[in-house]
Amino acid sequence: MMKTNTVKISSGLEIGKDFVVMAGPCSIESTDQFQETADFIKSKGAQILRGGMFKLRTDPESFQGLGQEAYSIAKEIKSSTNLPFISEVTDPRQISDFHDIVDVFQVGSRNMHNYALLKELGGAGKPVLLKRGFAGLIKEWLLSAEYVVKSGNEKVILCERGIRTFETATRNTFDINAIAFAKKHSPFPVIADPSHGTGATDLVVPVALAAAVAGADGLMVEVHPNPEQALSDGYQALDFSQFEELMTRLPTVLQAIDKALAPS
Amino acid sequence: MMKTNTVKISSGLEIGKDFVVMAGPCSIESTDQFQETADFIKSKGAQILRGGMFKLRTDPESFQGLGQEAYSIAKEIKSSTNLPFISEVTDPRQISDFHDIVDVFQVGSRNMHNYALLKELGGAGKPVLLKRGFAGLIKEWLLSAEYVVKSGNEKVILCERGIRTFETATRNTFDINAIAFAKKHSPFPVIADPSHGTGATDLVVPVALAAAVAGADGLMVEVHPNPEQALSDGYQALDFSQFEELMTRLPTVLQAIDKALAPS
Amino acid sequence: MMKTNTVKISSGLEIGKDFVVMAGPCSIESTDQFQETADFIKSKGAQILRGGMFKLRTDPESFQGLGQEAYSIAKEIKSSTNLPFISEVTDPRQISDFHDIVDVFQVGSRNMHNYALLKELGGAGKPVLLKRGFAGLIKEWLLSAEYVVKSGNEKVILCERGIRTFETATRNTFDINAIAFAKKHSPFPVIADPSHGTGATDLVVPVALAAAVAGADGLMVEVHPNPEQALSDGYQALDFSQFEELMTRLPTVLQAIDKALAPS
Amino acid sequence: MMKTNTVKISSGLEIGKDFVVMAGPCSIESTDQFQETADFIKSKGAQILRGGMFKLRTDPESFQGLGQEAYSIAKEIKSSTNLPFISEVTDPRQISDFHDIVDVFQVGSRNMHNYALLKELGGAGKPVLLKRGFAGLIKEWLLSAEYVVKSGNEKVILCERGIRTFETATRNTFDINAIAFAKKHSPFPVIADPSHGTGATDLVVPVALAAAVAGADGLMVEVHPNPEQALSDGYQALDFSQFEELMTRLPTVLQAIDKALAPS
Repeated sequence: MMKTNTVKISSGLEIGKDFVVMAGPCSIESTDQFQETADFIKSKGAQILRGGMFKLRTDPESFQGLGQEAYSIAKEIKSSTNLPFISEVTDPRQISDFHDIVDVFQVGSRNMHNYALLKELGGAGKPVLLKRGFAGLIKEWLLSAEYVVKSGNEKVILCERGIRTFETATRNTFDINAIAFAKKHSPFPVIADPSHGTGATDLVVPVALAAAVAGADGLMVEVHPNPEQALSDGYQALDFSQFEELMTRLPTVLQAIDKALAPS
Repeated sequence: MMKTNTVKISSGLEIGKDFVVMAGPCSIESTDQFQETADFIKSKGAQILRGGMFKLRTDPESFQGLGQEAYSIAKEIKSSTNLPFISEVTDPRQISDFHDIVDVFQVGSRNMHNYALLKELGGAGKPVLLKRGFAGLIKEWLLSAEYVVKSGNEKVILCERGIRTFETATRNTFDINAIAFAKKHSPFPVIADPSHGTGATDLVVPVALAAAVAGADGLMVEVHPNPEQALSDGYQALDFSQFEELMTRLPTVLQAIDKALAPS
Repeated sequence: MMKTNTVKISSGLEIGKDFVVMAGPCSIESTDQFQETADFIKSKGAQILRGGMFKLRTDPESFQGLGQEAYSIAKEIKSSTNLPFISEVTDPRQISDFHDIVDVFQVGSRNMHNYALLKELGGAGKPVLLKRGFAGLIKEWLLSAEYVVKSGNEKVILCERGIRTFETATRNTFDINAIAFAKKHSPFPVIADPSHGTGATDLVVPVALAAAVAGADGLMVEVHPNPEQALSDGYQALDFSQFEELMTRLPTVLQAIDKALAPS
Repeated sequence: MMKTNTVKISSGLEIGKDFVVMAGPCSIESTDQFQETADFIKSKGAQILRGGMFKLRTDPESFQGLGQEAYSIAKEIKSSTNLPFISEVTDPRQISDFHDIVDVFQVGSRNMHNYALLKELGGAGKPVLLKRGFAGLIKEWLLSAEYVVKSGNEKVILCERGIRTFETATRNTFDINAIAFAKKHSPFPVIADPSHGTGATDLVVPVALAAAVAGADGLMVEVHPNPEQALSDGYQALDFSQFEELMTRLPTVLQAIDKALAPS
């Protein structure tokens, strides 16, 4: 196994060291929804808050995220909870706006091959979480990480979120091999996203724990106060009690492989 | 079969009416290479010139295209041959520069899901050729076309260029079903790209002719004066004699299905 | 392109020479249904009759074919129409029974890797049509053909019938590249099955004609007097008027590539 | 989660109860190789011995297993170690021969759709381990299990061994979702085969432990005294020290999810 880089997020938090949990709703929908979720995930030990502001949706008629309206909500909740914040950037022209808001720039699965965006993030000075394209070869994923590094930014974190296969019982096929492979053959920390990786609430917890055991450095999970009312991806979001179950079981599993959850 | 839109390219050329051939090198490499290729493909009956200026390459160390240096070459050859020109746009910020140069904006396979780019092209006022993502569902491809249409631009042309499957004997699996399906179920003209669709020079001609018979409204093929010396994708480019073979056989095959090659 | 073997079916019919059409229902359902279909496909120029007796169905509750009850029906119709007959063998223990009935043994897609069956067919002395597994690499398909050849039977015919991919708009993805590839790189004749390859009646004709142009030596198509009443796979069967359209258009397309339909 | 059936293998061993480990070489190559491996895996706590006698190889020139020559070796080692034995049956005509030798019939990935074999195993009276086809939908896998059950044998054990996808960095993509899904939605015990699932020795241990945490009821792993000399699949076999590492780490991981290794 290669030595893993650590990527510093805040004074007390380095990805690639202790195990981290990034949690929050697919999309920021309102101040109340985001505040309630942020407070809850923090209380259960998550270290980083996630929440989409610009959503890439295949259907132009679907909810596209609050966009710039979400900026003030994100700032407010980030400040009140004191949690680092990660959100997806979908256009190189958003980077300057995001600079004051996010602690980690997320590159979504559909943008793994968007080299214009990757190069621009090379100059962003902040960590970049690079999701694997849903049809991206592991080799291409590592080369996309190189685009960011060669453009001047070594703070790259990989994220496996499932690939597109012939299987239809699950939304994607979570590639657990890719977790183990990337840990063996690359220096980047690797985060697992079992929410997209399964697309099914009842599979998120077992696959999340499995990813931890396979070597992941952390998780990104979607959590919503009321998944059935979510404006996007509710079928794969954990409700509060399910997230609590995950956070209860996770430390025991980590201990079995000589790891520990990072302090929140 | 749905009635197909026609997309006007120039005074005498409408895609969706007679069959069109777009040809040229993967990348513009030099004035000489581009001039020689353009003259040749025009002499054999191609109606539209292609040539990459910005290339999306998975490896940051690979040749990335001449970039802005190609602008003057493209203008010069376009003017000397009087051929409409199509080239791939990889960043929304390139659109204004491209406006004076291209007659058709090409959206590459890796950008089918780049909705920021698609929305911007809705205001570009010129035709957009939308390649199918190599892991894009046909349904998603048609929805990506809707992004452009809903942003104000109805001049959308689809392009099937092969999908990523388990097969490794060919670079991609050319989805001939998708040609027939899109012609039955969408109003957009459909172009076939057998160069990327096969990734193998010796398969390009049979698959090109097959695509024509399946209902395609035209072809996009890579042609290079010396494929072995090409700076990108030489293994799938036709040399001049192979392109001549294609253009010799094509009219006979089109006639068999009551179609004809557009005048050049 | 490699020189193609010819496989003699009857005194006047060799596969790999002129273009052949194998047609008939997915399953033999009754004497009347099979007689009516056989008479019709013969009248339109098909040279070989197909009809399933043992069906491989993923669901044990689905119709499994008439089994041995179909033997007498098959013999009767074969004799009255004087058409060679092809049917799928699903178990090495059926081979001796089939010997008096079929002129070509069909190995279905699910059995491409069934080496016990392939070896046994090496001693069968009659032609074997080997369908590609729906997840079989082209290389594996050619090696499966070698299993039959090395077991003593050189009369192997390949059949491309679509592969399983992420696409769901069509039942399978018909791999037109595989037709062109197998013709270039193997000595076996290649048949195209656009019925399974598309899984959609309205795509069968365009994809069938495309396969012919890509180099196929023949077609296998499902035809049913009343597809909506079919006991299996009705959604992909041509009705009589659709089959007639195919057989009307086929000779013109073949002529455009200097080929011709075999005499019936 | 559905209640899991238990499948009794011997007086002290039930699959679906405590966690089981099936281990041994891909192929039985000689008495010495099989004896040495069997002794070792037993000493480290494995409960069931595996070893191929008939191998399904894509290339007819590859080593096909010792075939009937392996019968006496298998009997001898089984008796000396007193371990239950599992081996792959590739032809319905082998079943009677196998009856005296194996305790569990293994159906390989290439035979998941071989319904003639599945139906015959319905009458075999002994447990059947049904590997998922490398392109089999989870739904089809469960229906194949139904073929065995409806033919009279309820002692079915599922085995996930990886699926064929576009990824080439690993031999297969181990579908961890399928483990969790099958445990939630079917009554059958589920075994994980990380040897085929990864095809790479250095990924076997992390993926094996992950599968346990995702809910698997046991493992099947390939172990060889000298993987580099193995006659088949050596690139994915654990050597003795690697297997020892797995068996050392496994109990701790199982304990973290309130499970335990079955007594050997």
